[in-house]
Amino acid sequence: MQPPKKIHIAGAGLVGSLLSVMLGRRGYDVTILERRSDPRLDDSDSGRSINLALSSRGIFALRTAGLMEDVEKLIIPMTGRMLHFADGSEELMPYGQRENEVIYSISRRDLNLLMMNRAEEAKPVNIKFNQSLESVDFDTKTITVIDLPTGQTRKESFEMLIGADGAGSRTRQAMMPEVGGNAVSDFLDHDYKELEIPAGDGVNSGEPEFQIEKNALHVWPRGGYMLIALPNQDGSFTVTLFMPKAGENSFETLEDPAELKRFFEEHFADTIPLIPDLVSDYKTHPQGRLGTVRCSPWYHSDRALILGDASHAIVPFHGQGMNSGFEDCSELIRLLGKHDDDWAVVLPEFNRIQKPNSDAIADMAIENYTTMRASVADPQFQLKKELGFELERRFPTRFVPRYSMVMFHLVPYAAAQKRGIIQQKILSELVEGHASIDTVDFAAAEAMIVEQLSEIELGY
Amino acid sequence: MQPPKKIHIAGAGLVGSLLSVMLGRRGYDVTILERRSDPRLDDSDSGRSINLALSSRGIFALRTAGLMEDVEKLIIPMTGRMLHFADGSEELMPYGQRENEVIYSISRRDLNLLMMNRAEEAKPVNIKFNQSLESVDFDTKTITVIDLPTGQTRKESFEMLIGADGAGSRTRQAMMPEVGGNAVSDFLDHDYKELEIPAGDGVNSGEPEFQIEKNALHVWPRGGYMLIALPNQDGSFTVTLFMPKAGENSFETLEDPAELKRFFEEHFADTIPLIPDLVSDYKTHPQGRLGTVRCSPWYHSDRALILGDASHAIVPFHGQGMNSGFEDCSELIRLLGKHDDDWAVVLPEFNRIQKPNSDAIADMAIENYTTMRASVADPQFQLKKELGFELERRFPTRFVPRYSMVMFHLVPYAAAQKRGIIQQKILSELVEGHASIDTVDFAAAEAMIVEQLSEIELGY
Repeated sequence: MQPPKKIHIAGAGLVGSLLSVMLGRRGYDVTILERRSDPRLDDSDSGRSINLALSSRGIFALRTAGLMEDVEKLIIPMTGRMLHFADGSEELMPYGQRENEVIYSISRRDLNLLMMNRAEEAKPVNIKFNQSLESVDFDTKTITVIDLPTGQTRKESFEMLIGADGAGSRTRQAMMPEVGGNAVSDFLDHDYKELEIPAGDGVNSGEPEFQIEKNALHVWPRGGYMLIALPNQDGSFTVTLFMPKAGENSFETLEDPAELKRFFEEHFADTIPLIPDLVSDYKTHPQGRLGTVRCSPWYHSDRALILGDASHAIVPFHGQGMNSGFEDCSELIRLLGKHDDDWAVVLPEFNRIQKPNSDAIADMAIENYTTMRASVADPQFQLKKELGFELERRFPTRFVPRYSMVMFHLVPYAAAQKRGIIQQKILSELVEGHASIDTVDFAAAEAMIVEQLSEIELGY
Repeated sequence: MQPPKKIHIAGAGLVGSLLSVMLGRRGYDVTILERRSDPRLDDSDSGRSINLALSSRGIFALRTAGLMEDVEKLIIPMTGRMLHFADGSEELMPYGQRENEVIYSISRRDLNLLMMNRAEEAKPVNIKFNQSLESVDFDTKTITVIDLPTGQTRKESFEMLIGADGAGSRTRQAMMPEVGGNAVSDFLDHDYKELEIPAGDGVNSGEPEFQIEKNALHVWPRGGYMLIALPNQDGSFTVTLFMPKAGENSFETLEDPAELKRFFEEHFADTIPLIPDLVSDYKTHPQGRLGTVRCSPWYHSDRALILGDASHAIVPFHGQGMNSGFEDCSELIRLLGKHDDDWAVVLPEFNRIQKPNSDAIADMAIENYTTMRASVADPQFQLKKELGFELERRFPTRFVPRYSMVMFHLVPYAAAQKRGIIQQKILSELVEGHASIDTVDFAAAEAMIVEQLSEIELGY
């Protein structure tokens, strides 16, 4: 077939705007339809500084798109998890043990604006705001769109439609019946709420003052619930409280300010002086939801594709929502190169490659919630973590901790998950009965590793 | 709690309009928001006569609502399946063997209009058309609605929100994240297309002339695909072709009129003179989709509920989509009576009772596709059917064919499914090695039935 020249993308969020840059550079004529208004004209949520953890897959894709140089000005390295225990003590658990194994805090808004600007510079990319995708006719390749300010409905032809329209994707909803597909959405019974640790007074004139360690992702693990904090460039931290919707110590029971304060005093005492607007932040910020979406297939013949959250939304506990969406973009571009832009070949191959990876990271992300809330404070967990690093030092081409494979390399998620299961078994067996890694049987370790773990392609 | 006085219903389809009549009669002030325009002002799809099979649960609910007397003027009894074999022969398989065990063909449009009219007479029910439900804030009990003709967005408070907004329910989509729920939609790789057998010339002046048996549901079972036809009051039949989306003999391969004709000539030769507009009907009618939706939970605390297709859309092969939605309505009204309109008690109880039933009918409906396409033409199937009727005659309080429990009684779907599994095993065992029911061991039958099947409450 003749490759399409024009591409419609639904959604100018992180994935849609990155993909538009990449496709624009590849010579496509790209139109993005975005439901929201232009964030550059609308400062209304500038007070909210949702941030994200950028890691290997996201960085690789941003490099592919030629954006990483600009992005570097926006990021703050985080070298590990700073654990804040209930007794007020704290401890840094490094994320990795090789050089430069850090992840980067970045503002969602700043990154999105940067990519929108770069997309529009990279003509022919055209972002149309306040456009609501109502329906799709895949047979005639026509979309129905409402221009929200006027309420006018119009039809537009498309050659290729890419849904980057998030977890509630209308593209997905329109496509699944047509292709005989299935979709599952599954929400946790925990929600989240954003709070803020403002920058310090800044006695060192001009320099932003971070009230807690700047280069870490802070975690207050408390079993059934937890608090985390990521640094912002202005010296503030975005804090997120994750806890159950209902039951003891839940969003349902902590509606009263006095109760909320009592809860924080009891469980997060060290944060009380750091979060001055606790009560008003809690009252005015929305209660966020945590869900996983899986579906199949991701494409319609030679004419439509969904990617990012639209085909595989995940919970945020592995910091991989954006990164896996960005990986979709770089993988799609790689396949377009491989197959000379023959989309009818690229779409099924993309689906075949990325779907098992997205299923794997969805599972690992849910699992990581338990890890972050509880296991990180567990000595057995810490012992295994330490042993994992030691085995990586000794067998760097075979044993790479699962967290590292996901965050610092380009090992496919499904492979990381599979190797992770084997590695966990090896670690459990080795630490059994030991209180320190010094007494571990490394000869036995080597035998197991060489037998069970092939040499690994890290890809990054 | 104080029961809500006002109820908002999303959707004025079959379930929404019936429920509004029932709630209006119960003294509630009901507002229905319907996305489509008023079908009474818009004759555009009057040429299409989609029809449905009304059976016990639907009839029971319509009686509860005081509507059955009017509905009786719209229905055509169908006493069984008229099987049309490939060689042109035909055979009627009665649906039941007790008195009045028939189902009724009815036009979706006629039934919906009747209920809308009766709802509006039953003030205070107010149906607002061209209103698109955009979002729901369950905390503040506020909905955001777009008035489609003007494009104006407004917020409205609600006391109780009931989503009867179909398989693509926005109420469900808004509710699942809030309640930590899950939703699955699953589409078949078969689609359908409606065709028409027009009424005959009417030589018997004035009387509608039916070109094939009026009082039957016609089936042309062909294994991988099938044709069915239901009678309309004007003498015409609505015909539905079910077949795979892709592959040999599919919607994909039969796009060419010559191919389509060849396909009909080869497989449905006796319908060729009956369907004069085959090619143009096929070309202009939309290709319908077949899907199942399951979700949990169906309610939000004391303030919202989804029912009918919104919480449990099913495929049409058991003729139970409308009937199960109507059962939701009568069951909800029963529980409101039982609990003095205490919705906080009614909602979880409704969910607990109806959810397993909806899961059961969803399974049975998919299973029935295979039955209708293939098994009905299988001698073993027919032998078991005959034996089932005989066992029902001999043990009427214990052995009731599953199809009869679903279509002619009010036995909960889940109970019908469970008993059906036991009954199938009994039937298989009894017919093993027999070519007629005359030689079956009825003493063994009695022993199995008395031991495995308790006395049954038919409920209707």
